[in-house]
Amino acid sequence: MHPKHPSESLTILTDLVLPSETNPLNNLFGGELLARMDRAASIAARRHSRRITVTASVNHVAFNRAIALGSVVTVEAKVSRSFNSSMEIFLDVWIEDRESGVRTKANEAIYTFVAVDEQGRPVTVPEIIPETELEKERFDAALRRKQLSLVLAGKMKPHEATELRALFL
Amino acid sequence: MHPKHPSESLTILTDLVLPSETNPLNNLFGGELLARMDRAASIAARRHSRRITVTASVNHVAFNRAIALGSVVTVEAKVSRSFNSSMEIFLDVWIEDRESGVRTKANEAIYTFVAVDEQGRPVTVPEIIPETELEKERFDAALRRKQLSLVLAGKMKPHEATELRALFL
Amino acid sequence: MHPKHPSESLTILTDLVLPSETNPLNNLFGGELLARMDRAASIAARRHSRRITVTASVNHVAFNRAIALGSVVTVEAKVSRSFNSSMEIFLDVWIEDRESGVRTKANEAIYTFVAVDEQGRPVTVPEIIPETELEKERFDAALRRKQLSLVLAGKMKPHEATELRALFL
Amino acid sequence: MHPKHPSESLTILTDLVLPSETNPLNNLFGGELLARMDRAASIAARRHSRRITVTASVNHVAFNRAIALGSVVTVEAKVSRSFNSSMEIFLDVWIEDRESGVRTKANEAIYTFVAVDEQGRPVTVPEIIPETELEKERFDAALRRKQLSLVLAGKMKPHEATELRALFL
Amino acid sequence: MHPKHPSESLTILTDLVLPSETNPLNNLFGGELLARMDRAASIAARRHSRRITVTASVNHVAFNRAIALGSVVTVEAKVSRSFNSSMEIFLDVWIEDRESGVRTKANEAIYTFVAVDEQGRPVTVPEIIPETELEKERFDAALRRKQLSLVLAGKMKPHEATELRALFL
Amino acid sequence: MHPKHPSESLTILTDLVLPSETNPLNNLFGGELLARMDRAASIAARRHSRRITVTASVNHVAFNRAIALGSVVTVEAKVSRSFNSSMEIFLDVWIEDRESGVRTKANEAIYTFVAVDEQGRPVTVPEIIPETELEKERFDAALRRKQLSLVLAGKMKPHEATELRALFL
Repeated sequence: MHPKHPSESLTILTDLVLPSETNPLNNLFGGELLARMDRAASIAARRHSRRITVTASVNHVAFNRAIALGSVVTVEAKVSRSFNSSMEIFLDVWIEDRESGVRTKANEAIYTFVAVDEQGRPVTVPEIIPETELEKERFDAALRRKQLSLVLAGKMKPHEATELRALFL
Repeated sequence: MHPKHPSESLTILTDLVLPSETNPLNNLFGGELLARMDRAASIAARRHSRRITVTASVNHVAFNRAIALGSVVTVEAKVSRSFNSSMEIFLDVWIEDRESGVRTKANEAIYTFVAVDEQGRPVTVPEIIPETELEKERFDAALRRKQLSLVLAGKMKPHEATELRALFL
Repeated sequence: MHPKHPSESLTILTDLVLPSETNPLNNLFGGELLARMDRAASIAARRHSRRITVTASVNHVAFNRAIALGSVVTVEAKVSRSFNSSMEIFLDVWIEDRESGVRTKANEAIYTFVAVDEQGRPVTVPEIIPETELEKERFDAALRRKQLSLVLAGKMKPHEATELRALFL
Repeated sequence: MHPKHPSESLTILTDLVLPSETNPLNNLFGGELLARMDRAASIAARRHSRRITVTASVNHVAFNRAIALGSVVTVEAKVSRSFNSSMEIFLDVWIEDRESGVRTKANEAIYTFVAVDEQGRPVTVPEIIPETELEKERFDAALRRKQLSLVLAGKMKPHEATELRALFL
Repeated sequence: MHPKHPSESLTILTDLVLPSETNPLNNLFGGELLARMDRAASIAARRHSRRITVTASVNHVAFNRAIALGSVVTVEAKVSRSFNSSMEIFLDVWIEDRESGVRTKANEAIYTFVAVDEQGRPVTVPEIIPETELEKERFDAALRRKQLSLVLAGKMKPHEATELRALFL
Repeated sequence: MHPKHPSESLTILTDLVLPSETNPLNNLFGGELLARMDRAASIAARRHSRRITVTASVNHVAFNRAIALGSVVTVEAKVSRSFNSSMEIFLDVWIEDRESGVRTKANEAIYTFVAVDEQGRPVTVPEIIPETELEKERFDAALRRKQLSLVLAGKMKPHEATELRALFL
């Protein structure tokens, strides 16, 4: 199984904010953005693994900026690291000003997907070789996030999470 | 502003898994569950604050069990802790076996909401006084999660996150 | 087959009124509320019967109060009486004031569901033993409604509908 | 205000049963049909009154036949009688066999709508003059249904409901 | 296989413009109208052929008039001509003024559908015999459109498109 | 107003085919693809004009390949030519094989959008300077299509459509 580059799974989903997706302040509902990012991430995971993929977890997602009705929203998803059958997907969400065309980062999110066969059993996926500086940073941080999620789930003892622990010493 | 109990914001959303919400394995899409939990959490946050509330962040959510088409899914949301204008909402998701009626925990999630006025500016919310053992546990852990999210966002130095740091020493 | 109490089928569906569900006066469409009540009622019927359940009829439903965009709507459904394979489900719909938290009854509805097997053939369901005063009242009235619907469908002669006839003498 | 004929409000909504509208037996959800009928009835009411119209109540609706995924469903709605600001809408629902083209009655329903102004206040609507035999039958029965709904709502004493009472004597 | 008249496939889909179907100017999205016309056309094609039908192409569709939120929109679809396994469907879209009841033509569209068997293979459909003047005009023009689409697809040489060529000489 | 290149309006919308979007053969409904292409085209038109844009017409769209449930569909939209206030958008739709990752052209479509101000009045848009061979071909053909649509709408006499007429002589 040949390793792959993050760019091979790049998935771009540009779409409008429709009236049915807004909250009482006329901004995109958090939940709708979460669903849209989930679809983009699942495609990126599929492009990396060429398998059926299912959502395993959603890491910390911060909603820093409200996204107004009628906005053009671009979700960009790329596999940042893989672990046996699981893949971490890093998502960047952009909005663009209609008049100036300037793009602004609206938020980031990290999803984890698992590749499965037709019976839903996990299968191995290719490794990732990061290329750009940003891809390398995200690749390294992915290990700390993996440890963090194992610690939070009680599946790893805090003192075993060496990468993570180093942060706090 | 009187403090409140978590039970005062309890929100129950029981609904079916509809055919339009399923993935190729005929299970509920992760993204659809994220959206449903977002709506339940926003109601719990509103019940606690009696304000308009907007999603601020989604913490680690693990999808431990697939939820099949036609399942009855119950999302239960309660405010677990509040910080000035933000509220942490803890969600438990249950599915029940149609024949035996037995309920099984499908997953847990933690969302953070902010209470805002009609112009979208943050406003203060009541404090929380936990009552049950589980509520107390979640109340205490909320502070560590708060620190973790500040550290991950670069808004707090790791060595200042005293509660969190204690975990790793 | 053990009889059950109405409380064993209690189903609570609390959700928001979304922009896509409103009419030109910015209130919840009658049709959307009917669909939402149908889902809650079908879950209550399933909880009572532990079977697949299908809508058999909708009794008189009055829409007494408009429900505004952004409202929190709680649909509560309970089996009020069962007849062989059919179950009458009584629904109460509540809205709550965001600022005061006060709950107001928005409307009531009565649906009838039938329990079926995988081939769609009717199967017997447990009897109901009402407990509270309100449950007893609804249990008694259910028989009159059953007679009324048989009379209206031409399947019972008016003079045979003894409970119902007594009302008019 | 000139009286109108039922045919002037005839509204035909022919559409497919889509996969997102089906229950576990692959038939149209009762709730979806209720919503579709509500939209057709509201257009018939608007055509009769030339006003904004809102759902006031749904009378007894029987779901006699399951409607399979992929079916062509025709909802036909006509005003059957008017009372000051309210209109009774009679709906006939048909399905047709794809191969033979034969139409079968799937069910009937009766909705009541109220005509309102831009502030939501009731306004008077034209009277109805029925023409066909079926329209005359439904026109007469509408009065008994009106009395029945007033009796059930506690707004009319059973002995005052003369048309209805006659049925049971 | 008996020929049929266009009136035998007449399909009427009258429905509201819902809030979830509008663009930033509060008018019906072009894409939503295209989808609604596709469903009506597929039913007309099915009524003519009594087969499963799939969209083969959409001809030039002009959106001449904006259709406002809350409008009543009537889509009328009829088969205008058939060619072996394909059918041209002509659609007229009407909106009506709420107060005056006057109907205005909003736009026209032409879709082509193919009749297929359960495996998706094309099957022969009945011929069309136009009756009204308008039906005859559309029947004749259908041949020119057929040639045009073959020319545009590179499947017919322009000089072979005799009906079409005559237009430009 | 500076002219722009087609690449400046490139819009990519990659998304899944969801169960609610499929016909009885389990393929994407033509109407759903038309709606999805309309959204992508409207964003490309907006990126070119930096204005509100509304659908003016849809040119001949051929559905050459069925797109199965669960497919990954990529819609790519670019402005191919502009005329005063209108823009022709050329769309390419791709599907990709999950196992091999090979992309296949599913269909092409051409939409026309008009740029408008907040009151819906047409406004001038920048010219287009095509760069690649394919962009130049599409730019030239756009004029013939423009003439064809004027001829079909009766707004240009066939003998005045010089570019188009040349095709048939």
